[in-house]
Amino acid sequence: MTTAKPCPCLIGGRWNQAQTERFDDIWNPSTGEAIGKTPLCTAADVDHAVQAAKKAFPAWRETPVTDRARIMFRFQEILTRHADDVARICSLEHGKTLAESRASVQRGIEMIEFACGIPSLYTGDIVENLAPSVDSETVRHPLGVVAGITPFNFPAMVPLWMYPVALTCGNCFILKPSPRVPLSSVRIGELLLEAGIPEGVFSIVHGDKECVDALLTHPDIRAISFVGSTKIAKYIYETGTAHGKRVQAAGGAKNHIIIMPDADMAPTIGGLINSAFGCAGERCMAGSLAIPVGNVADEVVGRLCERGQKMKVGRTDRGDDVDMGPVISRPHLERVRGYLEIAEKEGAKVALDGRKITVADGPNGYFLGPTVIDHVRPEMRVAKEEIFGPVLAVTRVNSLDEAFELGQQCEYGNGAVIFTRSGRAAREFKHRFNAGMIGINVGVPAPMAWFPFTGWNRSFFGDLHIQGKEGIAFYTQQRMTLTRWFEPAQVDKHDPVWRPGKS
Amino acid sequence: MTTAKPCPCLIGGRWNQAQTERFDDIWNPSTGEAIGKTPLCTAADVDHAVQAAKKAFPAWRETPVTDRARIMFRFQEILTRHADDVARICSLEHGKTLAESRASVQRGIEMIEFACGIPSLYTGDIVENLAPSVDSETVRHPLGVVAGITPFNFPAMVPLWMYPVALTCGNCFILKPSPRVPLSSVRIGELLLEAGIPEGVFSIVHGDKECVDALLTHPDIRAISFVGSTKIAKYIYETGTAHGKRVQAAGGAKNHIIIMPDADMAPTIGGLINSAFGCAGERCMAGSLAIPVGNVADEVVGRLCERGQKMKVGRTDRGDDVDMGPVISRPHLERVRGYLEIAEKEGAKVALDGRKITVADGPNGYFLGPTVIDHVRPEMRVAKEEIFGPVLAVTRVNSLDEAFELGQQCEYGNGAVIFTRSGRAAREFKHRFNAGMIGINVGVPAPMAWFPFTGWNRSFFGDLHIQGKEGIAFYTQQRMTLTRWFEPAQVDKHDPVWRPGKS
Amino acid sequence: MTTAKPCPCLIGGRWNQAQTERFDDIWNPSTGEAIGKTPLCTAADVDHAVQAAKKAFPAWRETPVTDRARIMFRFQEILTRHADDVARICSLEHGKTLAESRASVQRGIEMIEFACGIPSLYTGDIVENLAPSVDSETVRHPLGVVAGITPFNFPAMVPLWMYPVALTCGNCFILKPSPRVPLSSVRIGELLLEAGIPEGVFSIVHGDKECVDALLTHPDIRAISFVGSTKIAKYIYETGTAHGKRVQAAGGAKNHIIIMPDADMAPTIGGLINSAFGCAGERCMAGSLAIPVGNVADEVVGRLCERGQKMKVGRTDRGDDVDMGPVISRPHLERVRGYLEIAEKEGAKVALDGRKITVADGPNGYFLGPTVIDHVRPEMRVAKEEIFGPVLAVTRVNSLDEAFELGQQCEYGNGAVIFTRSGRAAREFKHRFNAGMIGINVGVPAPMAWFPFTGWNRSFFGDLHIQGKEGIAFYTQQRMTLTRWFEPAQVDKHDPVWRPGKS
Amino acid sequence: MTTAKPCPCLIGGRWNQAQTERFDDIWNPSTGEAIGKTPLCTAADVDHAVQAAKKAFPAWRETPVTDRARIMFRFQEILTRHADDVARICSLEHGKTLAESRASVQRGIEMIEFACGIPSLYTGDIVENLAPSVDSETVRHPLGVVAGITPFNFPAMVPLWMYPVALTCGNCFILKPSPRVPLSSVRIGELLLEAGIPEGVFSIVHGDKECVDALLTHPDIRAISFVGSTKIAKYIYETGTAHGKRVQAAGGAKNHIIIMPDADMAPTIGGLINSAFGCAGERCMAGSLAIPVGNVADEVVGRLCERGQKMKVGRTDRGDDVDMGPVISRPHLERVRGYLEIAEKEGAKVALDGRKITVADGPNGYFLGPTVIDHVRPEMRVAKEEIFGPVLAVTRVNSLDEAFELGQQCEYGNGAVIFTRSGRAAREFKHRFNAGMIGINVGVPAPMAWFPFTGWNRSFFGDLHIQGKEGIAFYTQQRMTLTRWFEPAQVDKHDPVWRPGKS
Repeated sequence: MTTAKPCPCLIGGRWNQAQTERFDDIWNPSTGEAIGKTPLCTAADVDHAVQAAKKAFPAWRETPVTDRARIMFRFQEILTRHADDVARICSLEHGKTLAESRASVQRGIEMIEFACGIPSLYTGDIVENLAPSVDSETVRHPLGVVAGITPFNFPAMVPLWMYPVALTCGNCFILKPSPRVPLSSVRIGELLLEAGIPEGVFSIVHGDKECVDALLTHPDIRAISFVGSTKIAKYIYETGTAHGKRVQAAGGAKNHIIIMPDADMAPTIGGLINSAFGCAGERCMAGSLAIPVGNVADEVVGRLCERGQKMKVGRTDRGDDVDMGPVISRPHLERVRGYLEIAEKEGAKVALDGRKITVADGPNGYFLGPTVIDHVRPEMRVAKEEIFGPVLAVTRVNSLDEAFELGQQCEYGNGAVIFTRSGRAAREFKHRFNAGMIGINVGVPAPMAWFPFTGWNRSFFGDLHIQGKEGIAFYTQQRMTLTRWFEPAQVDKHDPVWRPGKS
Repeated sequence: MTTAKPCPCLIGGRWNQAQTERFDDIWNPSTGEAIGKTPLCTAADVDHAVQAAKKAFPAWRETPVTDRARIMFRFQEILTRHADDVARICSLEHGKTLAESRASVQRGIEMIEFACGIPSLYTGDIVENLAPSVDSETVRHPLGVVAGITPFNFPAMVPLWMYPVALTCGNCFILKPSPRVPLSSVRIGELLLEAGIPEGVFSIVHGDKECVDALLTHPDIRAISFVGSTKIAKYIYETGTAHGKRVQAAGGAKNHIIIMPDADMAPTIGGLINSAFGCAGERCMAGSLAIPVGNVADEVVGRLCERGQKMKVGRTDRGDDVDMGPVISRPHLERVRGYLEIAEKEGAKVALDGRKITVADGPNGYFLGPTVIDHVRPEMRVAKEEIFGPVLAVTRVNSLDEAFELGQQCEYGNGAVIFTRSGRAAREFKHRFNAGMIGINVGVPAPMAWFPFTGWNRSFFGDLHIQGKEGIAFYTQQRMTLTRWFEPAQVDKHDPVWRPGKS
Repeated sequence: MTTAKPCPCLIGGRWNQAQTERFDDIWNPSTGEAIGKTPLCTAADVDHAVQAAKKAFPAWRETPVTDRARIMFRFQEILTRHADDVARICSLEHGKTLAESRASVQRGIEMIEFACGIPSLYTGDIVENLAPSVDSETVRHPLGVVAGITPFNFPAMVPLWMYPVALTCGNCFILKPSPRVPLSSVRIGELLLEAGIPEGVFSIVHGDKECVDALLTHPDIRAISFVGSTKIAKYIYETGTAHGKRVQAAGGAKNHIIIMPDADMAPTIGGLINSAFGCAGERCMAGSLAIPVGNVADEVVGRLCERGQKMKVGRTDRGDDVDMGPVISRPHLERVRGYLEIAEKEGAKVALDGRKITVADGPNGYFLGPTVIDHVRPEMRVAKEEIFGPVLAVTRVNSLDEAFELGQQCEYGNGAVIFTRSGRAAREFKHRFNAGMIGINVGVPAPMAWFPFTGWNRSFFGDLHIQGKEGIAFYTQQRMTLTRWFEPAQVDKHDPVWRPGKS
Repeated sequence: MTTAKPCPCLIGGRWNQAQTERFDDIWNPSTGEAIGKTPLCTAADVDHAVQAAKKAFPAWRETPVTDRARIMFRFQEILTRHADDVARICSLEHGKTLAESRASVQRGIEMIEFACGIPSLYTGDIVENLAPSVDSETVRHPLGVVAGITPFNFPAMVPLWMYPVALTCGNCFILKPSPRVPLSSVRIGELLLEAGIPEGVFSIVHGDKECVDALLTHPDIRAISFVGSTKIAKYIYETGTAHGKRVQAAGGAKNHIIIMPDADMAPTIGGLINSAFGCAGERCMAGSLAIPVGNVADEVVGRLCERGQKMKVGRTDRGDDVDMGPVISRPHLERVRGYLEIAEKEGAKVALDGRKITVADGPNGYFLGPTVIDHVRPEMRVAKEEIFGPVLAVTRVNSLDEAFELGQQCEYGNGAVIFTRSGRAAREFKHRFNAGMIGINVGVPAPMAWFPFTGWNRSFFGDLHIQGKEGIAFYTQQRMTLTRWFEPAQVDKHDPVWRPGKS
């Protein structure tokens, strides 16, 4: 994959070089080496993509929804066949383990499968005689040109949350992947072309804020989908809506994991480890705050440290069998490590210290081992802020109600998990806890493609979430029609053919 | 109704006077006399309402959806019983005819009826074993405190578009009616209290921009519904979203009515008259631009003028049997009349001149008779701007395609109507015309309560429209839950009760 | 209510006497006294009702669904107002306590409320361009004349499961209530007339097998809804389907209640008592087989007997405050008592013997006290057969799996209940137990109106259950339409109006 | 394909020979030559298939719906790849043209595509707090072992209407194709195995009435889907329901095609030709009764005869480019020809006589040319009976109302078509005509996979149609659950963890 040539844009069905002078390096986080260049597109590049999309839109809109879906059927088959290939690129540029990359590609394929069901989900409502002789109906229409701006942490999956649905709904889609991980998107884009997507219907541009702003302010883009940090999500939402667009913007999170005294400890610890350290903690659904309730805390922390210590941290660019890879970049590594110092200063105790880890064959990789910070109090920064690394804070409480309180104080609202055997505790938790995605004995309660990714509070800006039926509503506008036909007797009274009857 | 006392606010279940020093007069547009005072609430007044709503929310949210609906059943019965009473107030303060007021109240009652069906519409989705042993579900939750800001033109109906749905979804609702027509809302509010709505769940505040801004920026208000002009709708959308709220904001319109040469002329003219002059043209669904296609134009204009001239214009405050009442205010009357001068200056021809009308017993009323402006060219202001009075512009075209072109150039997108006998023309029209609500031989294609009010383009800001199932989606947020229960064998292996089986 | 005159039929909007010579007495089960006569209608009577319904159908079918619903809104209000009145009649003729009657009327009112939501549920599906230029849609149509045959045990509620939905769907409905309890139906019929149901749209006939067969074989009746015993349900299903009708036929049941060792005992016993002895056990959802798991059995049986013994059994015809009333008739009383002898003969132990009860002021009433039969083995008749009286059999098992096995062997499949605190046990139970309606810590898992009454196995014959959305599907047939309009260019090439465009 | 070996059965994942002594020949209808043998399975063969299916059911039922769908994704890809191959077999054994076979396979593939969307359609409903602290939900469950009995006229398509849906719903399916055309089903069965369907989940048996009765009466088969003649459909429905099964049985038809005077003649004649003579008229959706309204009749008949005469009739077993092939068998050919004699005897006029046709290279093929019978009166047999051959009867009427009357008198109710330019005529037609599938300017209004095949009257027996969402309802049963968890305060009052809160 390493190449001197910058990563291409996909515009009008062809792979082009951007008309820019600015580039970012793409790094292999396992080694710290540059493996490519991302062009930072200008407003002119964006406009080229928009114009190509606008041109493609009328024919694509009129293509029957069943035919649009059939392209996705082919895409599902092709991507399934190339899943391993894509997963390797994903591990190379992002640093998640190959197993994690494969799982994330599979999640993306499921979004394509969901989109293949669009003909059943695209239906409008019709009632004859809603009023006397008046029929009423709604029909869904695509919006036009829409765009998606995606983060570095799931190079393959998050873009696939968006465009299979947007495209089958009849829109033309412009993807701007993270400049740190553009290679996965380019590879999948090749496969989508192979599946037969018409020219201009799907485009890829690359870039940073300049490119983002060009998308947000372009008068011909009707909707923006975004996944990233809360700060940027809020900016995207405000700027996009101020420019008259629909926006769905998913942000960051601080996800709580409550462990009840009756929890079955073995699978609970497994769930915690996966939730906190999976993808090196770079997940907006990562469980980053463990909340043991009552006297179970010592056992939880003890087992976490024991299991965490055994995890094999290493390079992910060669398909090695490791448990955890590096974080995305050197600055991010420094930022995450900084939180450990903050925590210590604020009086918490680092029970398992990932800074001690070394990776022999990746001395310049951005590695941090699994880290557990115990005795975190709610007012500390590591209890409140999103760290986005393999760092699990532990806040001990005496009752489930205290855990609910912590949830209420949290500004975010993505995931929240409870480990328990109690039906009552589980139901109260899912009914009352202040977050939009709940796991009952499920460490990472990310919905599958058929269900919406329902972040709450400052984890999401907008009305209609990504994934599931909300995704379809986001990418379509309804049109309502009232129809009446006047009595022919009035108009053709001498025409023998018209004899209004009562049969 | 005339009283020296200012119109009360409803806060915490009680009718209070606002804590303000500022008031607006309420005018009887049929006579130009003041009939009351509207308090212009301060941010403090708004905060009182919000605090009362916040206090009421936890219990209301936990009230079963069936019980919440049952209050609406009582409200439906009570409002039906008092419909005439409310219609009279509506005609008094707004100036629409009593028949028009009655019809608008009936439309409002239908929204209550729609809301009564909420238990069937509130359902989430559930799939067992979406993944092995993992169940997935979504459940709807209310947002919390939400607010509605409503216009002068439908004092009873537009507020009822919002709160029956918002309330049955479990939200607490704060209504801010137009300061020009608060009396209808107050009367209906009394009836809702009688129906048993709990204290604080429904509130009314009054006011102008100060009050609006207090609502838009209050951190505890989660969503804003708005109906008004496009300029304000855009402001509401931008300001509300910038403050992290959901917003649905319906704006103004310029609605096209195409008359095909094969249209049945008698009912077509009736439809045009109703669409253009009903409610004195003060409807965002008013047909304000007639577009006769081909050689039918002279007949259309001729008949329109003939019929329009015969309309009886008069006072609506005494239940008189008139065909059209006054517009809302003196400044608005001047503004509407101004458009006639503009049109004449730009070269159009006033074929029927409403300025000539006089109303003997309402010499100070804000009356303008039905007006038809012929030979309007697309670039003229009366072809493009919303006049919001009984003024119908006529633009002649030679083909249906020219009419489509006019639609494409229009910045708005509420209603569009075609009068024709042709199935082909009707289908092309509903599939392609650039507006969200289509009438086929229906002069005013406003959806009934069960269908969404799907304005497009600059006639609507937001994703989810008012009315119908989109209304329910707007006032609720979904929560997704993944549930797994660990194999008991792992945890209770010595418990004889647990013998996992395969039956 | 006592009267020499036979109970009237409702045909063509008028209350008529049946043209029959045969009558059944109506008994007050609290006293054994006759309180009226039920006419046993002939095929001619049935045909009169059908002809009146056929005549009414065309206009009713064309009545907008919103207007049909509005009659139900009035009916809801009127029946709510007269609920107590109806409940007293129900208690008089059937023998359930006044509290039970009131609750059952409330359940019936909820069905009306569900039916009021029909405009949102009546919608068909529409997709434009499903194939190129071809639109596809479905629309629901009523079936025509349909009939309901209802049992003695819920005189007010079960008929209301059927006709509010059937009627709002646009059908004409003929009700044949049980000849033992016709008075409640007649009273509610009066209220429905008051609500404004048009003549002939709703009819009541009375009778026994002759009348039933006339309904089942009448060529103009399109669908039959039935609730009763399994034996008759099977007959209804076979006979109705053989005559080309849709049939939904709910039959009897033997409902299992599993008590896990971790169940919270106080509310569990309360739930068991209500389930087994409520309505004197005359419920197809009665919990009639308690299955304590493990060592909890002695406590369960002990507490049941203790609580059961304290129940006040007495007359229900005077509004007295009793806990349980009589069973429906003397023969039924003898049949139920017979099961106690059978059980004793087969080796079970009558732990609480309801035969010992006496009711001082109802010496001829059909009373049996709460009865518990312990140590029932699965092969005994009281473990397998529906007794339909206040008799609870107890079968002790050692594991949840044994309870699943008992479920597998059961020929019925209405309700099954588990009392437990365990989330795992609850989920396994609801996923695997061989019954269609599951209660988790809910003694009588009868669905509310908005959800279907999903009996399985020999508890139901048909595809589409009563209540909920399945009820609407049962009472309607869909019509599918494909629409295409030919290019006007082909047909009107000289018409300047038609210039097919691309905008 | 010609072989001495009988066609195999698929049981338990393996291709087996049936244990029967009885066989039917398979004929090539283009030549009259035998090309194979169909075994006529015994009850024992059927039971083997059922036992294999029962064994496979528990694991298949527990397979996540998403995984079941994924097998269909592979099946879609494989069948698309082999579509031409399958079409050739279909043309060989049935006699439709290769183009027709290809189109029918495509329709079958669309059913697989519909079934791939099952995860979105399999969802149950859930409401929290439907009553206080009580949650209510429904979940779909498969029925178990189900069977499909399919006709000769669409060897590939009609079986695919059934099993993709039945299988993704979690059922095990047994297919019994027509003994005249088993080869297509066997070939597609091989492809489904290749797609990974587990052993026993999908089976094929062959046979005649003995086999059908074994399926209808087998106690372990839960549902029967059938497509065939009305006489057999009624038998299937009565017998299946009497054995406690769900049944959906589609029968024959007499489909009306109304031609209005304003119809665009060129495409109308094309539509008529396709509808009447496509697949040699062997379609239950064939337009077999043309009804010209008013003075258009002579032109319609004239053009039909002219176009019909030009159609190329010939062999379909070699991929030749012909317009129409033979009918299915010699006896059927005789039966169809017999109708021409009947028509002549009853006084109708054979305007185009297909008996005159000869096929040089298929002298023993079962050929009849396109036939038009004019001046058919409603009481004649060719106006009322299903002929199932390339024979179009023409009944002339004077008004649309007369056409409606003809529809009312028809015992069938599959398709009905109108050709017109009038929106009013189209709407009246679709709202009122007595048939379940309506075409507006569409000659063969067969729904696409996503919409139900809604035959009415004696064209369908049952409640739930094949295809679309009704198909899913047919193959699943819902289970309703009510869940409550008791207040922990009652049960754990000394447990500090439980402090029920109000957050």
